[in-house]
Amino acid sequence: MKLVIGDKFNSSWSMRPWVLLKHFGIPFDETLIRLGQPDTKSKILDVSPSGKVPCLITDAGDSVWESLAIVETIAEQHPEHAMWPRDAAARARARSISAEMHAGFADLRQNMPMEITTHAPGTGATPGALANIARIEAIWAECLAASGGPFLFGEFGIADAMFAPVVMRFNTYAPELSATSLEYAKRVTALPAVAAWIEGAREEAR
Amino acid sequence: MKLVIGDKFNSSWSMRPWVLLKHFGIPFDETLIRLGQPDTKSKILDVSPSGKVPCLITDAGDSVWESLAIVETIAEQHPEHAMWPRDAAARARARSISAEMHAGFADLRQNMPMEITTHAPGTGATPGALANIARIEAIWAECLAASGGPFLFGEFGIADAMFAPVVMRFNTYAPELSATSLEYAKRVTALPAVAAWIEGAREEAR
Repeated sequence: MKLVIGDKFNSSWSMRPWVLLKHFGIPFDETLIRLGQPDTKSKILDVSPSGKVPCLITDAGDSVWESLAIVETIAEQHPEHAMWPRDAAARARARSISAEMHAGFADLRQNMPMEITTHAPGTGATPGALANIARIEAIWAECLAASGGPFLFGEFGIADAMFAPVVMRFNTYAPELSATSLEYAKRVTALPAVAAWIEGAREEAR
Repeated sequence: MKLVIGDKFNSSWSMRPWVLLKHFGIPFDETLIRLGQPDTKSKILDVSPSGKVPCLITDAGDSVWESLAIVETIAEQHPEHAMWPRDAAARARARSISAEMHAGFADLRQNMPMEITTHAPGTGATPGALANIARIEAIWAECLAASGGPFLFGEFGIADAMFAPVVMRFNTYAPELSATSLEYAKRVTALPAVAAWIEGAREEAR
């Protein structure tokens, strides 16, 4: 199995399935395509019909694209891991917030782009981005209260992986956050799989 | 089980799970919240934490929101129906194109909004919208060739439901399409569940 990703510095969509696979110890080959290069588009189109990363290439040679489709496929292939919550109601909720992340929060994504090694507190705090952050904090608070933590549905899973790049943005732009959000963000940042991605981004910068 | 939707005239996201449930004959109550009214936002927030429709309320009273999370949840509850293809590789592909629809095609969605009873050929054909349409035609052509049709993965399923509002847009704005796309669009339009949604939109206009 191969995962095609963009730069660890700023490919937020690539981070999601990568962190999930690493966290659950699922072996995979990694191919990194540098974004913003003259040949980026053609390199990606060679493997991913949508022209976007990430893209999973299965052992059978099939391409699976879009982070949400990739994580559903991985979860289905590994029923031994509770990537989605085992409880049906919690699972439906985890899918709801993961899909909300997948299609939403455009203002946050535009004004506070993921740039892992950048430190720029206060930047990008437009009204739209702040409204997105308020909604994200509400999601986190509700999930953490319902599950008891330490992650959104108890143990780390797909929903946390979907929001991991948001945590990276919070680390960079340091918007005002509740104590609950800050503590959750710290736990995500400290997770070995997330730390490994961050270290990869640092190595790119060298 | 209750599905909260917006106007059938233009709530493209609501159309997707509604058509899926109707097609597979799964009983559900329907609550329609008129969009664009002074109390729309508060009415939606009463049932859907994200402030958006559609929202599924399960028999246990849980809210499931975002079309993609709703259809995954419905598919899981009804393994007797092949809402996703039975074949794992086809299923991964169906999830990829459904997720691509869920998060993408912003130019098409903005410039050719779903307005079921509107007839406005030629409107909205911006370069971005036409590029989106080219990608959609490529997806349809590849899926129909691989499955043999009549729908994207053989029988009608989630992937077709996800693209049904695109068919409605094509009916309204009549962009130039391949014969393959036109025939597929005709089959989707004629599907009893889709025809019932269109009829509902016509009734709203009376």
